[in-house]
Amino acid sequence: MYGEMLDPITRQLIDLALAEDLGAGDVTTAATVDPAAHGVGEIIAKEPCVLSGLAVAGAVFCRLDPQLSFQALRPEGDRLSPGTVVARISGRLAALLAGERVALNFLRRLSGVATLTARYVAAARAGSARVRVVDTRKTTPGMRSLEKAAVRAGGGCNHRFHLGDGVLIKDNHIVAAGGIGPALARARATAHHLLKVEVEVQDLAGLAEALQAGAEVVLLDNMSPEQVAAAVALNQGRALLEVSGGVTLATIAAYARTGVQLVSVGALTHAATDVDLSLELLPPAADDAAAPAAPLLHRQSTPADWGAD
Amino acid sequence: MYGEMLDPITRQLIDLALAEDLGAGDVTTAATVDPAAHGVGEIIAKEPCVLSGLAVAGAVFCRLDPQLSFQALRPEGDRLSPGTVVARISGRLAALLAGERVALNFLRRLSGVATLTARYVAAARAGSARVRVVDTRKTTPGMRSLEKAAVRAGGGCNHRFHLGDGVLIKDNHIVAAGGIGPALARARATAHHLLKVEVEVQDLAGLAEALQAGAEVVLLDNMSPEQVAAAVALNQGRALLEVSGGVTLATIAAYARTGVQLVSVGALTHAATDVDLSLELLPPAADDAAAPAAPLLHRQSTPADWGAD
Amino acid sequence: MYGEMLDPITRQLIDLALAEDLGAGDVTTAATVDPAAHGVGEIIAKEPCVLSGLAVAGAVFCRLDPQLSFQALRPEGDRLSPGTVVARISGRLAALLAGERVALNFLRRLSGVATLTARYVAAARAGSARVRVVDTRKTTPGMRSLEKAAVRAGGGCNHRFHLGDGVLIKDNHIVAAGGIGPALARARATAHHLLKVEVEVQDLAGLAEALQAGAEVVLLDNMSPEQVAAAVALNQGRALLEVSGGVTLATIAAYARTGVQLVSVGALTHAATDVDLSLELLPPAADDAAAPAAPLLHRQSTPADWGAD
Amino acid sequence: MYGEMLDPITRQLIDLALAEDLGAGDVTTAATVDPAAHGVGEIIAKEPCVLSGLAVAGAVFCRLDPQLSFQALRPEGDRLSPGTVVARISGRLAALLAGERVALNFLRRLSGVATLTARYVAAARAGSARVRVVDTRKTTPGMRSLEKAAVRAGGGCNHRFHLGDGVLIKDNHIVAAGGIGPALARARATAHHLLKVEVEVQDLAGLAEALQAGAEVVLLDNMSPEQVAAAVALNQGRALLEVSGGVTLATIAAYARTGVQLVSVGALTHAATDVDLSLELLPPAADDAAAPAAPLLHRQSTPADWGAD
Amino acid sequence: MYGEMLDPITRQLIDLALAEDLGAGDVTTAATVDPAAHGVGEIIAKEPCVLSGLAVAGAVFCRLDPQLSFQALRPEGDRLSPGTVVARISGRLAALLAGERVALNFLRRLSGVATLTARYVAAARAGSARVRVVDTRKTTPGMRSLEKAAVRAGGGCNHRFHLGDGVLIKDNHIVAAGGIGPALARARATAHHLLKVEVEVQDLAGLAEALQAGAEVVLLDNMSPEQVAAAVALNQGRALLEVSGGVTLATIAAYARTGVQLVSVGALTHAATDVDLSLELLPPAADDAAAPAAPLLHRQSTPADWGAD
Amino acid sequence: MYGEMLDPITRQLIDLALAEDLGAGDVTTAATVDPAAHGVGEIIAKEPCVLSGLAVAGAVFCRLDPQLSFQALRPEGDRLSPGTVVARISGRLAALLAGERVALNFLRRLSGVATLTARYVAAARAGSARVRVVDTRKTTPGMRSLEKAAVRAGGGCNHRFHLGDGVLIKDNHIVAAGGIGPALARARATAHHLLKVEVEVQDLAGLAEALQAGAEVVLLDNMSPEQVAAAVALNQGRALLEVSGGVTLATIAAYARTGVQLVSVGALTHAATDVDLSLELLPPAADDAAAPAAPLLHRQSTPADWGAD
Repeated sequence: MYGEMLDPITRQLIDLALAEDLGAGDVTTAATVDPAAHGVGEIIAKEPCVLSGLAVAGAVFCRLDPQLSFQALRPEGDRLSPGTVVARISGRLAALLAGERVALNFLRRLSGVATLTARYVAAARAGSARVRVVDTRKTTPGMRSLEKAAVRAGGGCNHRFHLGDGVLIKDNHIVAAGGIGPALARARATAHHLLKVEVEVQDLAGLAEALQAGAEVVLLDNMSPEQVAAAVALNQGRALLEVSGGVTLATIAAYARTGVQLVSVGALTHAATDVDLSLELLPPAADDAAAPAAPLLHRQSTPADWGAD
Repeated sequence: MYGEMLDPITRQLIDLALAEDLGAGDVTTAATVDPAAHGVGEIIAKEPCVLSGLAVAGAVFCRLDPQLSFQALRPEGDRLSPGTVVARISGRLAALLAGERVALNFLRRLSGVATLTARYVAAARAGSARVRVVDTRKTTPGMRSLEKAAVRAGGGCNHRFHLGDGVLIKDNHIVAAGGIGPALARARATAHHLLKVEVEVQDLAGLAEALQAGAEVVLLDNMSPEQVAAAVALNQGRALLEVSGGVTLATIAAYARTGVQLVSVGALTHAATDVDLSLELLPPAADDAAAPAAPLLHRQSTPADWGAD
Repeated sequence: MYGEMLDPITRQLIDLALAEDLGAGDVTTAATVDPAAHGVGEIIAKEPCVLSGLAVAGAVFCRLDPQLSFQALRPEGDRLSPGTVVARISGRLAALLAGERVALNFLRRLSGVATLTARYVAAARAGSARVRVVDTRKTTPGMRSLEKAAVRAGGGCNHRFHLGDGVLIKDNHIVAAGGIGPALARARATAHHLLKVEVEVQDLAGLAEALQAGAEVVLLDNMSPEQVAAAVALNQGRALLEVSGGVTLATIAAYARTGVQLVSVGALTHAATDVDLSLELLPPAADDAAAPAAPLLHRQSTPADWGAD
Repeated sequence: MYGEMLDPITRQLIDLALAEDLGAGDVTTAATVDPAAHGVGEIIAKEPCVLSGLAVAGAVFCRLDPQLSFQALRPEGDRLSPGTVVARISGRLAALLAGERVALNFLRRLSGVATLTARYVAAARAGSARVRVVDTRKTTPGMRSLEKAAVRAGGGCNHRFHLGDGVLIKDNHIVAAGGIGPALARARATAHHLLKVEVEVQDLAGLAEALQAGAEVVLLDNMSPEQVAAAVALNQGRALLEVSGGVTLATIAAYARTGVQLVSVGALTHAATDVDLSLELLPPAADDAAAPAAPLLHRQSTPADWGAD
Repeated sequence: MYGEMLDPITRQLIDLALAEDLGAGDVTTAATVDPAAHGVGEIIAKEPCVLSGLAVAGAVFCRLDPQLSFQALRPEGDRLSPGTVVARISGRLAALLAGERVALNFLRRLSGVATLTARYVAAARAGSARVRVVDTRKTTPGMRSLEKAAVRAGGGCNHRFHLGDGVLIKDNHIVAAGGIGPALARARATAHHLLKVEVEVQDLAGLAEALQAGAEVVLLDNMSPEQVAAAVALNQGRALLEVSGGVTLATIAAYARTGVQLVSVGALTHAATDVDLSLELLPPAADDAAAPAAPLLHRQSTPADWGAD
Repeated sequence: MYGEMLDPITRQLIDLALAEDLGAGDVTTAATVDPAAHGVGEIIAKEPCVLSGLAVAGAVFCRLDPQLSFQALRPEGDRLSPGTVVARISGRLAALLAGERVALNFLRRLSGVATLTARYVAAARAGSARVRVVDTRKTTPGMRSLEKAAVRAGGGCNHRFHLGDGVLIKDNHIVAAGGIGPALARARATAHHLLKVEVEVQDLAGLAEALQAGAEVVLLDNMSPEQVAAAVALNQGRALLEVSGGVTLATIAAYARTGVQLVSVGALTHAATDVDLSLELLPPAADDAAAPAAPLLHRQSTPADWGAD
């Protein structure tokens, strides 16, 4: 996602999600709703949560029917109370009903990621005001950039986006390269000069070896808070240190307290569940004559959502 | 998904997932691993769970490198204990490392859905041996057919796949059509003759009205087990009855006990989290001369996974 | 197709049709027509027919040049006389000329389907006021939803759209399942609860077996009107009955008279031929100053045609 | 279509056709047929016809399931009698059943085009042994190259494929360019040097003007055979002459007799209807052990069908 | 490319180019630029050149952000001096910065082709006022139609676009067909009647044979100007003659002087290098209030650039 | 490009290139070459050059006809003399002829980039044995990863691939952020922890400011070798230094001699022109019986070329 604009993968995922939910068309609505009828709906939080994904929810509706007007009422990252109205959509009622499920499936999951992230960040803050809670690559297939944005919305930070924008040398790479030293040397010779090299170690001996080989970032894998504290002491500020593996809401403060700069938490994305947001239709107003105005409003408000498609 | 073959949406989702995780390429592996090196990995369960998604995990690897051999060792729906090896992959080590994360992201989530479903089904069985625990359209964008298969793997049943293969008349449709009777009549006139018509009702009065209008299936929305029992009595076997809304592991047996035929549970998909499966590389064998044989095995075992692409 | 919006397959088909007809560009028009010249054309019926496909014809023009204004003047399903003007298009002359053939290829075929359907429906009405004349899956590749809409435009009804939204058990399925009874039982256990199960039978014995097994719909394959009448008598209103196979304009009334609810006719789509509609350019008006206004009209009238692309 | 290989548009059309016919999967077959069961089917002509489209029918099956073996038994353009077996398919029974309809929809229509073309060519031969019966751009959207191949299979010849591989100046172009002379001159200056320029004329005066302007090909639009004979006399062998408009099976011989080189007939494609070919499953053989051999046969026989995808 | 509209291949290439340059987003701009900030940039020539590709450069910006306003200030084919402002873009500063490189990569290369073509055309004019300098199929993958337009912008003419819109019989075809005569005869029988047939020959004997066989166009391969002059004399105006192979800026005039109609030069596209055009941002104006007007201007000026996408 | 496998963008570009060059098919070959004829061709260097792009050239042929066997005979980066045979292709003659142009268009350009890079690297070596000659984002649209591989083949190194895998703060970013210090601070806070931050400066004052702000990499824009030498002195080894702008073959040694670690040269890609490689068909052998063996060879040698498509 670039600024307000959706990236190509997200746009393709929206199309897949609409295709799988519409099939050959919404037979119920086709049977019962006048194709010309106009409606207005509101998306409303049903439980306390952190908002993320309103842009993609809006894009779902506008992709389905470019005449729909989607108005975001709360910003990404907003803390919502039950009952908060976060968006208003108006236009053809049939399109509202057809797009509802897909839009909510995105929004509910992304807000779930943001909400869970916010809990981890709050817990970490109890240990350190400066530690970064970062995500992993354990994201939902096709939703990497959306979920990484949700992590940011919840107050977290991102790790690398994919295998191409950061070097992270793990056990198998070390074995294949013949040791930490050779692996680091080969990574520096091959990767371009704007990528840093991170090495995963299992214990203090590994850390010592990595530091000697000049590692810029070291991942401390599955260590206890005590081991991490010892690692911080050993490091003496030379490398960035990242704690990873087995971090929970109960333990993150202890890790943060050690002084490591980064704690990565796969659960931010792989253990998040939906939060409850739903779409409610407003009762039809008396002034249906206002309907024709909607497309004009839409034309002004939505193209930026769709971006470079 | 058709039989062993993956449907077009799933294949596109695999491509999106690989694209978002590979970026311009796996710079770490490119730096540290000999492109010609051969490896063997095993996917292993780390906690008790129900298996789902091995076919799509295999497709991820084969999509990345058609020379990889992916061998499924356990069937869809299998109950796994920690340590169970569920699949073996062999081929270029660099491809194994590059595909690992995406394959696991699919497999862990789908097995998570199957595992949660199995828990709901077991709980429901305490109330009734015959009740169907069915899913909803609250699925992950792009994974509808995969998650519906996971529900089946966990012992659940599917509701309609999308808006086009079943008529489900909700409140807004009833308002738009001018009542339950007109809505049902219009649905029958419009939908083709192999689709049944289901109507959502909030109370016994609604059920009575729906039955009078000839509804074939009625969704009882957010009713208590007691209300559902009354509904079953009122129904007298005329319509299929589906309970929906607010069903939990704690309450599902009570609902099942009422005699309704169907209990739908959105949580099967929207509240599922990953179960822990991981990929472990085997230490390199002495007989690397065996490597050339792998492609032949692969050619026999994998084309069906990729199906009609 | 959902409401006024075109479904993804239709949009892709439009793109294929434009690609195959434009090649590297319209060399004749490029050589002879001023790129800035403005024109107005009308689509006119040249023979009596039933209109279908104006939305897709308009989408072809707007896909080629979003600045074109396409104005539909007659509704889907309208009965046209020779000379009736059904649509008016204005905008860049070069785009009008480039899009003409593809737009008409769609419109002429779809109106052909609607027209042939109307003849079958009229013939069936001589036998019964209530029988449904339904289509089959013998449609033009890529045009399934368009041709099914054309059948509706001609007064017909649709059968299932594809293999996924209805169960239709044929001979081979019965053999594979080990009889009508087991086939029906397995279909009910597997299909979701909003799909009805139809069984194809060849004779009265088959019908009896199907009814005993609880078939909800039975397809009477290649039976004479007399056999069908006997089948209706045997059925006693238990199952929906569908006549299929060898139904012609000459025999459909006799079948309708038997009291079956459904008569399916493959010829509606596989034996339809084009009806004659053509595009005629209006002589250039004196008031070319009016041209700039067209894009504004277009902006208001066409986005809905393109829907969720 | 290049040689045995299918062009990209055709491959995309196959995908659209499979997508629209499969929906979320073949629920009937899924319920009743063992996914591992093996079957053999034959495609058989049910009426006399000219064969076209076997390659695309085979591609449909192989696209659906690459393990299927498709064996073409008769060549493109073959004259078939009722009962002729034109192809044999073996492999997974479920895939055979799922692909049957789409494959036949292609094959039946294309053979219909070839058959109708053969009738026009035979009729034209009564008037001239050398006249070319050529097609037009009035083809089914997405099937241009397939239908043009079917025309060749029926003994016809092709006109230009699209707007880019031939210059055909019609009335509107002449008006826009300011006369036949200027239009021809601009076309020669703009088009590359391997494209010929054809001009459409309505009468002998038009022909005279076109010849004077140096037209290489002239289309005689909607003239009677007598007018065409006069045109041939006037032409004195200078330009190629093409008759177009209103040619029927009854009149084509008279046109051919005039000595024109080309008669174009839109009906070859826009008035063709399906011919009857169907797929019949062979009864299961005793030697099911032979099934595993099929994939090997398939691997040898089918990759060329899929070509450059 | 059709008129002002971009063809589908060009649009897809724009998407590939944006995808490969944006990756997961412009991290620098995301960090440093206010997403709502507005900017204005100008594309300026830095050296004398012939302009080509402004439409595609504009399309890049508008594809990235449809809200951007792109205003072309100089026409295709314009001769530019250093300092000439050729286009002005206004809108979100972040989008300007993100699209700059891709837009310039297109524009600089295409203007390079136009500029080199203009040099060849000027050199050829020294030998003949009427000779056509034509391109070849040695174009950049994916940029065929753009580079052919650039050749026209530079004063050159196009050869056939691809293998389908012209017959060019080379040595291997002659060998395969069994001689020039049979090759020509088979080409005429197979190709449609609006395609001319060109034959490649290596010497005067080949030319004589081609002329005797009735070749309409003959390609003289790698002959000296003297040999070409002899070929012109032998030809006596019967066939169009094309010189090809080894033509340079130093020798083109000598070839042109022989009287051949066509000289093809692969170097127009395969030896062109970028010319220097760059984008400069204007200092922010005081009247930022003008920003909201931009989208309106954009709406009027750009949709035609994007054409039928 | 990942290992031997082609990335998705490259595969899509191959498809675009084939589509634009084939049009509706190779009419010349269709007319003159027996579709079943077998041929063998060799790709041969015609001038001294550095080889790059053989994998993509092979992929072009195999994409067109998967039955073709493509055998690479020389490795990427090989120094070729005129006459060197770099690859052998065998299979259907018609496919060889149809794919030749597209395959060569890729190979000739990429080898041109590798060859030009090798010249720059050799020139730089005269100044320093350790300096990295790096590329820029001035690459051909759609060929970014291929051209970056060609730069490596020529002995150069890569800069960041795109806007997402490295932070490069330029003038406009500095202005927008309010100075070098704030820009750097915001970049570090926003970018993930594996990305380094580079700042572009115009003079020594800028360098001093950047160093003070803690820049890890500094781009020295358009400075003379003398200024660069002063910058190296000022830097005292703190930041990586990159020279950029106006570097030529004549000046690169002088820049290298200053001790900067990196010299970036846009010309590597934007000023490269094709080198001459061509395909020559071998005369048909007597033993055509060998033809059937080719597909088997192909099956073993090519799947890896096509990778994860």
